[in-house]
Amino acid sequence: MLFKIVRKIDHIKPFSKAKAHCDVPCGIYDPITAQIDALTVVRMMDLMAGLADGDEKARIDFQNSMSRYVAVKEDHAEKAKHEIRVIWGDFIKDAHVEKYPELPGLVHKIMQLGSKSRQSADREHGLAFVEAINEFAEIFWAIKDVKTKKANAPYAPGLEMVYPDL
Amino acid sequence: MLFKIVRKIDHIKPFSKAKAHCDVPCGIYDPITAQIDALTVVRMMDLMAGLADGDEKARIDFQNSMSRYVAVKEDHAEKAKHEIRVIWGDFIKDAHVEKYPELPGLVHKIMQLGSKSRQSADREHGLAFVEAINEFAEIFWAIKDVKTKKANAPYAPGLEMVYPDL
Amino acid sequence: MLFKIVRKIDHIKPFSKAKAHCDVPCGIYDPITAQIDALTVVRMMDLMAGLADGDEKARIDFQNSMSRYVAVKEDHAEKAKHEIRVIWGDFIKDAHVEKYPELPGLVHKIMQLGSKSRQSADREHGLAFVEAINEFAEIFWAIKDVKTKKANAPYAPGLEMVYPDL
Amino acid sequence: MLFKIVRKIDHIKPFSKAKAHCDVPCGIYDPITAQIDALTVVRMMDLMAGLADGDEKARIDFQNSMSRYVAVKEDHAEKAKHEIRVIWGDFIKDAHVEKYPELPGLVHKIMQLGSKSRQSADREHGLAFVEAINEFAEIFWAIKDVKTKKANAPYAPGLEMVYPDL
Amino acid sequence: MLFKIVRKIDHIKPFSKAKAHCDVPCGIYDPITAQIDALTVVRMMDLMAGLADGDEKARIDFQNSMSRYVAVKEDHAEKAKHEIRVIWGDFIKDAHVEKYPELPGLVHKIMQLGSKSRQSADREHGLAFVEAINEFAEIFWAIKDVKTKKANAPYAPGLEMVYPDL
Amino acid sequence: MLFKIVRKIDHIKPFSKAKAHCDVPCGIYDPITAQIDALTVVRMMDLMAGLADGDEKARIDFQNSMSRYVAVKEDHAEKAKHEIRVIWGDFIKDAHVEKYPELPGLVHKIMQLGSKSRQSADREHGLAFVEAINEFAEIFWAIKDVKTKKANAPYAPGLEMVYPDL
Repeated sequence: MLFKIVRKIDHIKPFSKAKAHCDVPCGIYDPITAQIDALTVVRMMDLMAGLADGDEKARIDFQNSMSRYVAVKEDHAEKAKHEIRVIWGDFIKDAHVEKYPELPGLVHKIMQLGSKSRQSADREHGLAFVEAINEFAEIFWAIKDVKTKKANAPYAPGLEMVYPDL
Repeated sequence: MLFKIVRKIDHIKPFSKAKAHCDVPCGIYDPITAQIDALTVVRMMDLMAGLADGDEKARIDFQNSMSRYVAVKEDHAEKAKHEIRVIWGDFIKDAHVEKYPELPGLVHKIMQLGSKSRQSADREHGLAFVEAINEFAEIFWAIKDVKTKKANAPYAPGLEMVYPDL
Repeated sequence: MLFKIVRKIDHIKPFSKAKAHCDVPCGIYDPITAQIDALTVVRMMDLMAGLADGDEKARIDFQNSMSRYVAVKEDHAEKAKHEIRVIWGDFIKDAHVEKYPELPGLVHKIMQLGSKSRQSADREHGLAFVEAINEFAEIFWAIKDVKTKKANAPYAPGLEMVYPDL
Repeated sequence: MLFKIVRKIDHIKPFSKAKAHCDVPCGIYDPITAQIDALTVVRMMDLMAGLADGDEKARIDFQNSMSRYVAVKEDHAEKAKHEIRVIWGDFIKDAHVEKYPELPGLVHKIMQLGSKSRQSADREHGLAFVEAINEFAEIFWAIKDVKTKKANAPYAPGLEMVYPDL
Repeated sequence: MLFKIVRKIDHIKPFSKAKAHCDVPCGIYDPITAQIDALTVVRMMDLMAGLADGDEKARIDFQNSMSRYVAVKEDHAEKAKHEIRVIWGDFIKDAHVEKYPELPGLVHKIMQLGSKSRQSADREHGLAFVEAINEFAEIFWAIKDVKTKKANAPYAPGLEMVYPDL
Repeated sequence: MLFKIVRKIDHIKPFSKAKAHCDVPCGIYDPITAQIDALTVVRMMDLMAGLADGDEKARIDFQNSMSRYVAVKEDHAEKAKHEIRVIWGDFIKDAHVEKYPELPGLVHKIMQLGSKSRQSADREHGLAFVEAINEFAEIFWAIKDVKTKKANAPYAPGLEMVYPDL
């Protein structure tokens, strides 16, 4: 209740509010890197699937590409999880959790989907990972009073992403 | 109280339950590395405080040691947070959260205390970081049906730690 | 002017061209991470300057914060340089260099400004680093036939950045 | 000779002795992380063997899991070697080598077994790696005048490990 | 013109010149690490080819070795590219580019060949990578007024390398 | 004397012997990277000393440079130790230790000097570190039947180094 009133007052001068909730010194938080990492995970799944289909590939080239795709997938899934953990641990305060009570569960889900995306090459897990991080991005920008829009990423796999509307 | 009863029931078929919640393939999870990392954070704070007290130190040696202690503190605080995030994201399932509803808040607190321990050299933050991770370790071992004990760490700063009673 | 005409012609068959220059398998390239890294460099310079001004700070806290800001500055300047090198080495083909002959010099300048931003805490170097990377981003998106816009970053230091207009 | 007398006196107040042999500033050394890393190596070997047995696995999932297990095995074997090297280089002094002349050979053996555990997926190498590190742990705790016990690790592969008896 | 005269004068006392072109503080630059990394890339290609030929290998050992060779190849190709980027960005000044106008193109080529050496296991790419880095080493030592010689590397694959003639 | 005779006998069939002691697959081992890393440690010590002398430096630039030099010193001392550990663990066999019984002690000394070079900015420790690694390089090349020479490094601090005479 009190929080809602504070929010209303905040809308008069949104920037001062950001300061109110953000302990100095604060870094630069932006979920876009996690979003790009998650997209890369899906991209690797697609490349892996494409590779599996191509039987004409020589065995050694197949191994070389497959090992690399798995490694890139591992790396970016981990980075996405790490980025979200940093924003969650350093930027998200208890007051934000009160306002967005779905946050702890969402963050837990992102971690689990990131692990599933590493443990398998199943595109469904990758897509769910991207979606969950987009959902997180939406809350993040709402906390910062920055409007968002949806647009397709300008590179394969071209999924719909949440972007700040600057 | 409720907790004790639930624990008792658990003892009837502890292992099958653990398996039920743990997707194969599962890795090796052990909070001890996070606990040692957090202890190291406090150790560095102590060394930094000791260094600040010693005025007879040459300026260049002071800078060398101070930079190193801060870097080790940064590194281990980050590692502790990372370890807890991995256990939380990969080992802790929704059923565990239901049984230990304090878990999401505790994990969030660990992340925040880890950041505070990096942002300052205040021993209080370091101690709170160690304690929160010990609390996590206690829940972790309870989930695995392994009894725990408390003992002082066999190295400075010799804080009381939670260990599995093997 | 000339640029606009070339852009118009490009619009006739934008995708096939992008493919012609891009060896499969291609990853996801996006200069935004380098741009955020460069912004972070300036942010750290500002925090360092703020810290130097505050004389009331205890010596040990000053050392702790200063060491951390320098380390974050180092890390992000390096990451920005790495990202640009990856895009330049993996995405930019000889045909692009022919069309944008300023590219090799610009990339060299980015590397040099990144090093200057590490070697000093001089904001001018940081600003020049951000600007050079924005310039690179502009060419990058032009190559991909994606329009760009300018907007202030939604976080301190709030500099004007080049964004794809999605 | 002199050393033996010193040791006798030490037993009266063991903690002061630890200080006598340890140059300030000393970090926190604990072989448990190397022991867990070595256990993880064996765990990965078991998972790899299990994977090879399962023919019903789709080719792409097989590749995904196999690449990940090998990478985790590589990583943990390296970490275990690194940890032992740190304790050996930073904690073990010449006086310790005099008292435990088997130490240099044991450390060399640990490095070689770590490499064998990387070069193959042969469980025997992994088991020998775990054993050699347990042997090192036993000497380490003896140097610190901390009693040890043996117990099975509370997670697969559940091998017998050396633990400090706290 | 002026540069040529400066060069002439420089030859009288070569060391002062090195200082003239090198901003203090300067690090230690030496292309030998990139050269060794590139050699390692070719070595891994040879091991991969040898492995592919051997059909008698058990499937699991094949996977273990193949994954490791690809990872080492990835790692060293990346390190070689990184080293060259550092020398190019930190040591090479505009005056050097004027004197050796082939430098920007050569550096771009090294980056591209490094990527090709990662994307495939084709020995030709690896050899071209080694050669391009040797060419860079030759220019590097010429800038430093250090004579070079050619000799076969004292380890497999024993390719001809450019070394400073000390 | 004995050494010379053994060396002479070795020359009769140098290559087959090298193979006998080296398990296939073998990587590329070269102590030069450790030697360059150790040189860099001394270079940083010199830069730190120069910085401490200059009182006219602004406080913030002093902190920036000092933090960076310490970090580079840390990093290269660690890399040098790591490189020597790899060669020692992967290349050096028991037969080599028999022939060069000083090896285990020398390797232990290198680890200790590396740590001393991190813990202080004392040039003497850095010089001893370089010397010990040169000594290791001499044995390494002798094992490989490659002659060595001594020459000053072609960059500051220009210390005398052991190089293979190719």
